[in-house]
Amino acid sequence: MAPAQRLLAEFIGSLFLAGVVIGSGILAVAVSAGNDGVALLGNTAATAAILWVLVAVLGPVSGAHFNPAVTLAFAMRREISPGMAVIYGIVQIAGCVAGAMLAHAMFELPLVQAASTDRSGAAKMLSEGVATFALVFAIFGAIRHAPKAVPAAVALVIAAGYWWTASTSFANPAITIARALSDTFAGVRGADVPGFILAQLIGALLATGVSAFLFGQDKDAPA
Amino acid sequence: MAPAQRLLAEFIGSLFLAGVVIGSGILAVAVSAGNDGVALLGNTAATAAILWVLVAVLGPVSGAHFNPAVTLAFAMRREISPGMAVIYGIVQIAGCVAGAMLAHAMFELPLVQAASTDRSGAAKMLSEGVATFALVFAIFGAIRHAPKAVPAAVALVIAAGYWWTASTSFANPAITIARALSDTFAGVRGADVPGFILAQLIGALLATGVSAFLFGQDKDAPA
Amino acid sequence: MAPAQRLLAEFIGSLFLAGVVIGSGILAVAVSAGNDGVALLGNTAATAAILWVLVAVLGPVSGAHFNPAVTLAFAMRREISPGMAVIYGIVQIAGCVAGAMLAHAMFELPLVQAASTDRSGAAKMLSEGVATFALVFAIFGAIRHAPKAVPAAVALVIAAGYWWTASTSFANPAITIARALSDTFAGVRGADVPGFILAQLIGALLATGVSAFLFGQDKDAPA
Amino acid sequence: MAPAQRLLAEFIGSLFLAGVVIGSGILAVAVSAGNDGVALLGNTAATAAILWVLVAVLGPVSGAHFNPAVTLAFAMRREISPGMAVIYGIVQIAGCVAGAMLAHAMFELPLVQAASTDRSGAAKMLSEGVATFALVFAIFGAIRHAPKAVPAAVALVIAAGYWWTASTSFANPAITIARALSDTFAGVRGADVPGFILAQLIGALLATGVSAFLFGQDKDAPA
Repeated sequence: MAPAQRLLAEFIGSLFLAGVVIGSGILAVAVSAGNDGVALLGNTAATAAILWVLVAVLGPVSGAHFNPAVTLAFAMRREISPGMAVIYGIVQIAGCVAGAMLAHAMFELPLVQAASTDRSGAAKMLSEGVATFALVFAIFGAIRHAPKAVPAAVALVIAAGYWWTASTSFANPAITIARALSDTFAGVRGADVPGFILAQLIGALLATGVSAFLFGQDKDAPA
Repeated sequence: MAPAQRLLAEFIGSLFLAGVVIGSGILAVAVSAGNDGVALLGNTAATAAILWVLVAVLGPVSGAHFNPAVTLAFAMRREISPGMAVIYGIVQIAGCVAGAMLAHAMFELPLVQAASTDRSGAAKMLSEGVATFALVFAIFGAIRHAPKAVPAAVALVIAAGYWWTASTSFANPAITIARALSDTFAGVRGADVPGFILAQLIGALLATGVSAFLFGQDKDAPA
Repeated sequence: MAPAQRLLAEFIGSLFLAGVVIGSGILAVAVSAGNDGVALLGNTAATAAILWVLVAVLGPVSGAHFNPAVTLAFAMRREISPGMAVIYGIVQIAGCVAGAMLAHAMFELPLVQAASTDRSGAAKMLSEGVATFALVFAIFGAIRHAPKAVPAAVALVIAAGYWWTASTSFANPAITIARALSDTFAGVRGADVPGFILAQLIGALLATGVSAFLFGQDKDAPA
Repeated sequence: MAPAQRLLAEFIGSLFLAGVVIGSGILAVAVSAGNDGVALLGNTAATAAILWVLVAVLGPVSGAHFNPAVTLAFAMRREISPGMAVIYGIVQIAGCVAGAMLAHAMFELPLVQAASTDRSGAAKMLSEGVATFALVFAIFGAIRHAPKAVPAAVALVIAAGYWWTASTSFANPAITIARALSDTFAGVRGADVPGFILAQLIGALLATGVSAFLFGQDKDAPA
């Protein structure tokens, strides 16, 4: 694919992903009568559904990373060049921020907000590391052993992550930045962003190593 | 396929789709003890489930549009003739209205009603444009890159749309008309219909353009 | 397959199906704090999940009918002999009754009960006709156009049926009989059983006719 | 695969499985405002999702048992040697215990706890026997008739089991031990563990026999 198509795919995918994560959180809280479990079920279903769609239709175009931690992992495997990886990261962040703004616009909220949800502490960072490890591990395992099921693997590992980690599994530095700009259900306080991103990158790197041992490397994988 | 089979498939599919959207909304509100989040979960699950079934079994017969905005998009790609597209649209509207009446009959409600749910404003129109963009984008992306998964792409992009847009993602002019005839959970006030349909058609046209750039055109796609 | 294997497959499948329908209804009500919408979500998820599994693993053995209305439809297409169809029906009823008893045993309830849930009236019968039409239509459509996805088609059309019909989509005479023996969430009063079964059979026959027109007949379909 | 890879795969899979089962139970109760049905929906979704991912990506490495009862069943079919089966069992238990500890760490709870949830009685043991029978039956049926769908079969049979059995379908001796070390939603009192495990092993053995009759044996199955 030409770079313009790859970057547009990453931008649109990141935009939709962040838009769904944040938008479904806003609606979910509004309709769930104070039961955050119900809200989280809706938030989970929407996120998993759009992830499946985006990875299925954009995977062959750009690799469907939408996530700097995933791009870093592919760069470690030398399946994307360092320069393109940096551009991917910038486009992913821009797309996620645009997605947050689109969600706010649909719900008639200020386009950019400062999130106030406290997600601090070592346990939350551990959660992000685990969540991102699981995501990258699932991606490389599926590329190796179930290549047609990569969209399902990504959607389902994130769905599980929303429920079993203590941080609701952001697992994505670009989404983390976008969520810091949304003072809603999916928000995260700006002060907690650096710790989240650090944990995510560590989780991704560890998963890349373990995956290389367990799954080997598939040089033909999409990047 | 012969035109009679294609049109019957569009009619039955549109009938079932509208029947499920409206019927599941009626039951969902009745059983959910005032928690609209629970109701929306049931409404979402039912809609996504029937969409998957209808697209899987009727796609090879008629293309499984059930949606004038989708038919318009295929007409732009010259994969359905203008004359047949118009007939498709009429049959889709008739099917959706029949589906609304069937749902009302099962729940012992007046067969035709005037909806009163206010869904006015620019943000709701933006929502419909975004929702229909996402639907058409998913369809053309899946036809190009995951042709066996078109049913899943359609079902999941609508499931996500129910939660991340502010209008619960009608994304379909025929369904919009049918929902205007149902004063229930899924209803929409008649006065809001023109704005919804306009936004849906714009979203579909934009998605057709972006899809052509990202995915190319597959002349063998079902129409 | 030998008749003994086919009949055992129908028995086990019917037993699990009825056991899950009734057992998940019992648990769902017990844990859902009076919110029947939450209970129905659990009941739906469990039913759809086990249907997918049973049709996937037993379809190649017995056809995975578990349902006299479905067996009738296959008999109409001459894909199962009248004599074997009758035996199928008896085994399906026996299996469903055994499943109800198993569910009751696990929850320490009387093994056989007289259901008291009133599901009377023409609208409920219409619902059962529509639900069974949809089921048989989905089966024959999937056999024709998505043969590997028959398990998903069956699971999803029933999941939708639980929500969009006014009778929660029994769509199966053997299940209906078993549910008459369970005074729980999934129960149905004995007096309503004949009307349900009549409507189910009519729905199945209509769907067989419409399916023949739209999908043709696949003589190699499992029976 | 080399033994080191197989055993690491079993360890990681068991760790993630137990971590998700227990972690999602903790979060689910915390957010569900006292509605255990909502909590169970989240617990079910997370468990099924991660099971699908783990079986899909680790199945070709180790067989993706994560479960001594499943390993026993494969040993009965002589598809894993007795010695390796014992090592598998030890690694599975170690992985599940590590997963419980990881979940506790993420939620800032004591790493090891003594569960207090009473799940005693014959009906609960019957439930575990039925649940494990269903799991092993689904696995061998899917290996025979839908080999690409083994991940879905495992995920969905457990999802159904969470709702239709009276014990929430542990169906796994290693998970049972780990859950005895977690005084949370997913916990089980130590005194009930032996009965659970006995019932699970009996269920697995019965299913192995019935599966051999209905499905035959596939010597090429993963082990």
